[in-house]
This record gives sequence, C-alpha cells and structure tokens, in this order.
Amino acid sequence: MHVHVNAATSADGKLSTRRREQVHISGEEDFARVDRLRAEHDAVAVGVGTVLADDPSLVRFDSERRAAVGKSGVPARVVADSRARTPPDAAILAGGAPTYVLVSERAPRERRERLEAAGAALVVAGEERVDLDGAFAALADDGIAEVMVEGGGELIYSLFAAGLVDELTVFVGPVVVGGRDAPTLADGEGFVDPAAFPALDLVGVERLGEGVVLRWQA
Amino acid sequence: MHVHVNAATSADGKLSTRRREQVHISGEEDFARVDRLRAEHDAVAVGVGTVLADDPSLVRFDSERRAAVGKSGVPARVVADSRARTPPDAAILAGGAPTYVLVSERAPRERRERLEAAGAALVVAGEERVDLDGAFAALADDGIAEVMVEGGGELIYSLFAAGLVDELTVFVGPVVVGGRDAPTLADGEGFVDPAAFPALDLVGVERLGEGVVLRWQA
Repeated sequence: MHVHVNAATSADGKLSTRRREQVHISGEEDFARVDRLRAEHDAVAVGVGTVLADDPSLVRFDSERRAAVGKSGVPARVVADSRARTPPDAAILAGGAPTYVLVSERAPRERRERLEAAGAALVVAGEERVDLDGAFAALADDGIAEVMVEGGGELIYSLFAAGLVDELTVFVGPVVVGGRDAPTLADGEGFVDPAAFPALDLVGVERLGEGVVLRWQA
Repeated sequence: MHVHVNAATSADGKLSTRRREQVHISGEEDFARVDRLRAEHDAVAVGVGTVLADDPSLVRFDSERRAAVGKSGVPARVVADSRARTPPDAAILAGGAPTYVLVSERAPRERRERLEAAGAALVVAGEERVDLDGAFAALADDGIAEVMVEGGGELIYSLFAAGLVDELTVFVGPVVVGGRDAPTLADGEGFVDPAAFPALDLVGVERLGEGVVLRWQA
C-alpha cells in the first residue's frame, strides 16, 4: 500500500479556523492539481472529523488524467471512523463511488448496520481505535494499492505515528489563520522524542498560483 | 517601524513539541541565515513564553553583515512581557546588548523594579496586555526602526492581529512534529472571519539545506 497525504495549509500550518470552518487557502490551480492527484489513486481517504465538519463528497477527479495513468473506474472513498460516527446521509456515502468505512470493534453495532444499509463497505480493525495498519491491509486485499489522504490533522498524525505515510504534499497558501486551537496538518498527541520524529526528504518545491507546493518523501 | 517575523517550523507548522522543548528543525545554513538577518535589524524580539521555555540570549549575529549594511553597535533585544514575568537572571538580560521589556500597566511594580535593577529598559504600554502598537512606537522613538521577531506563536499572532507585520520568513524543515497542543507559527485566539485573515504575498522560495525558506510580504 502506497499512502500519499495531500493537504492545503495557511502560511502558519493551519487546515482551517478554530471553528473548523473550511477556508479558501488554495485556488483553481491547486484544485486542478488535487483532481489530478485523486485520479492517480485507487482511493481517497479522510478522517471522520473531516466528514462531520465539511461533509465532503470526494467524487471529483480528473478523468483524463485517470485514463492517462491507466486506471479504470472511479477512486473509492475511505473514512477512518473508529466509532462509526459517519452520518448515514453523509455526502461521502452518496454519488456512486464505493465507500469504505474503517471502524474499530468498539463501534456500536447499530451504527455499523445503518452505514452498511447506506451502502458503505465496513472494515473492522482494532479494538478501541481503528488499527490503520490492519485496515489498510484489508483495503489492499480489496485491490486498493494507492491511497491519497486528504486530512484531517488527526488522521494524518495517526498515519505518521503508524509509519504508514510514503509521501506528503502540502500546498502552502498566502494567508495567516492563527489559533492555538485551530486544526493543523498533523494534530493528535504529537511526537516528543526527536528520535521518533518522522523524517522527510524534500523532493519538490513549486510555486502554484499565490502559494507554493512542497513535496516530501517519508 | 518595520517588523520582520522569522521562524523555523516543521513540515506541519510546529515551532516545537507539545512539551515546548526546542527542536532542531533547521541546520547550519539556516543558523547562518538567521545570524545575517539579526545583523540587519536594530533589535530582535521574542515573547516571554519563549524566554521562559528556551532562555535565549539572542546575542549572536553576523558582524560582517552588520558592517556591510552600515549598522553600528549590536542588535538590541526586546521581550513582549505583559506581566513582567521575565526572570531577572534570564540570559536575555545578560551579555551586553541592551534589552527592552515591554510590559502592561498590570505588571506588578516589584517585578518591574527587579527587571530594571537587572539592567532592562522598561516600556509600559497598554492596560491588561501590552499594547504592541504603542510599545513599538516607543521603541521607534528610541531609534529602533527595524525589528526582527523570532517567536513564539503567541507574539507572532498578536503582531498579525495588530497589523504590525511587514514581512514573514519561514524555514520549513524536513520533519513532522505533530500535536494538537504543540506551539505553531501563529497561535493566540486565531482569526475566524476570512475577511480578517492577514493576506500575504509570496516573494521568495529558496531551498536551504534540507528544507525551504518561504518569504512572504504582509
């Protein structure tokens, strides 16, 4: 499984305001880049916090690019959702593309059943919290070899903590959001031991629109 | 007064870990860049949180560069410190360069006197919290026309909120720190109204060592 994290942050590293309201950080050029990137992947993943805050559908992608990279069908969607809190009427369950919801054993049966009734394919891995390593292995068994992760900061941190990230691409936009409680690119508990910090290699720096795209390899 | 904010962050926008322990985000090339930048300014400023966490002396600078830009003497030091919490034995009060401590009227008289006895020049502005606009005007009256701000995230946010930032330079380093409670480049309360977000212009993108230096104009 190849995992590519892609996100847009303000110049001060925020994904959104402290109210978790989405912010227009990037522009048309970056939207087009994201659509191409989605086309290159078998699935696009977000955390349940992003589903609850933004209700994204994640169905848009660049179909020309998809044909060019030799992939058929549409990118699947994945929600990391330990307790199965995704609302059955969430946009990520509508629109035709298959959707996997990754839950833990603690997810209430009733909510799981409602999600399955709404068309989701459930993957159960882990006891309290979803075991991302195990869940991604199950996705791989289902033919998903390349996953793009679009946030939020809790899922991105968990993926780094699990050593699952292969690539990180960040569009840094021309705005300051601020806020000690605003979501950042990697939230979670945070690393404290410098020896445990995930190290990156900077493999690309490219101006795009009013910002810059930084490409890192993990 | 010209205000230039300079900081090093992880790829996810953190200044340090959630324990506020300093992290080696940049390297020798960036240290040299910071020393040149200090030489170009009349004063180097930090918030009291940084003084309490890191006890920086801020005395190092590139003396060749200082001569080249036609400045004499050494850069002064400035601490934004509403309640006068800077310890009298802090490194920022030692080492020969003049040090201004910016306090509010709420700063206890006893602590102010101790700081003056330790050699600090006190600037009183604002009632509860230091009025940065007024305090910087007082510095300007004292001949300080160009200030470099090195953090932390609370001071940087306050400066953006007060509309005082002219330039922002960020070294983005090849590491992920993570942590919803880790200090970021701009903390504080945060902006919520997109119309109020400080907007930036990207004026420079330069690879440096293992990271990249982004230069923004406010």
